[in-house]
Amino acid sequence: MITLDPIGTVRSKYTDPSQVPKGTGAKHDAEGVLEIRPEFEAGLTDIEGYSHLYVLWIFDRAEGFHLMSQPPNADRPHGVFSTRSPHRPNAIGLTVVELLGRDGPRLRVRGLDMLDGTPIVDIKPYLSSIPVETLRRGWLGEAERRHS
Amino acid sequence: MITLDPIGTVRSKYTDPSQVPKGTGAKHDAEGVLEIRPEFEAGLTDIEGYSHLYVLWIFDRAEGFHLMSQPPNADRPHGVFSTRSPHRPNAIGLTVVELLGRDGPRLRVRGLDMLDGTPIVDIKPYLSSIPVETLRRGWLGEAERRHS
Repeated sequence: MITLDPIGTVRSKYTDPSQVPKGTGAKHDAEGVLEIRPEFEAGLTDIEGYSHLYVLWIFDRAEGFHLMSQPPNADRPHGVFSTRSPHRPNAIGLTVVELLGRDGPRLRVRGLDMLDGTPIVDIKPYLSSIPVETLRRGWLGEAERRHS
Repeated sequence: MITLDPIGTVRSKYTDPSQVPKGTGAKHDAEGVLEIRPEFEAGLTDIEGYSHLYVLWIFDRAEGFHLMSQPPNADRPHGVFSTRSPHRPNAIGLTVVELLGRDGPRLRVRGLDMLDGTPIVDIKPYLSSIPVETLRRGWLGEAERRHS
């Protein structure tokens, strides 16, 4: 067991889960700010060189978990580890954002899908991509084909 | 603050950090198993449809953190959030693996860079890639060019 202590906070235009685009075809192009606590600012050194970052954060407004869940546009329940459901055994979220710029401890980013005030626990560089042509996207790929 | 409780354990051929390929040009093609605890097995339902997964795990053998660190092949220290250093404020690791197959609660995967016995805290589908041509890889890209 380990305990996480937030390194910062998301500043986002979303204040309620219903505002966050969900389901097949959802576009995540919302801009906002990752506000890092001043005592961690040195840890951002040289981050400007990256175009994209992984943000690890806490689903702080989700309670409990369900091993099976039915996401928007799914035609049946799927295992929680096959989904991005907030109701996970360990309520950690993962989002890839585009880094637009940095003002000291504030990172301006595009691609947020978190609520305003969400606690950030880690930031990592996005280093490599799986080529799209080798990616299989499971039940979500099927759902997208059904809805297209 | 939230507390993480592992959902499973990595079975890897690596037993010591020195065995894990590091630095520019490191290849991660080690195969191994993600052993999920039986009580979470239902959460894996339909995961077979994905070719790649995100694995979130704990650097359980790293102590403390440094805001600046100098990774292998770097020519100067970089901020910890610009690196994959294990010595992070919240010691969570993130690895993309290829899913080779599933035997009940055991996922056979390729691309491990974790030590044997590493606690797993979450598994998520790898859904989309940033096109390689739009990716900037910061100081690591520079280091690779220096060493190529």
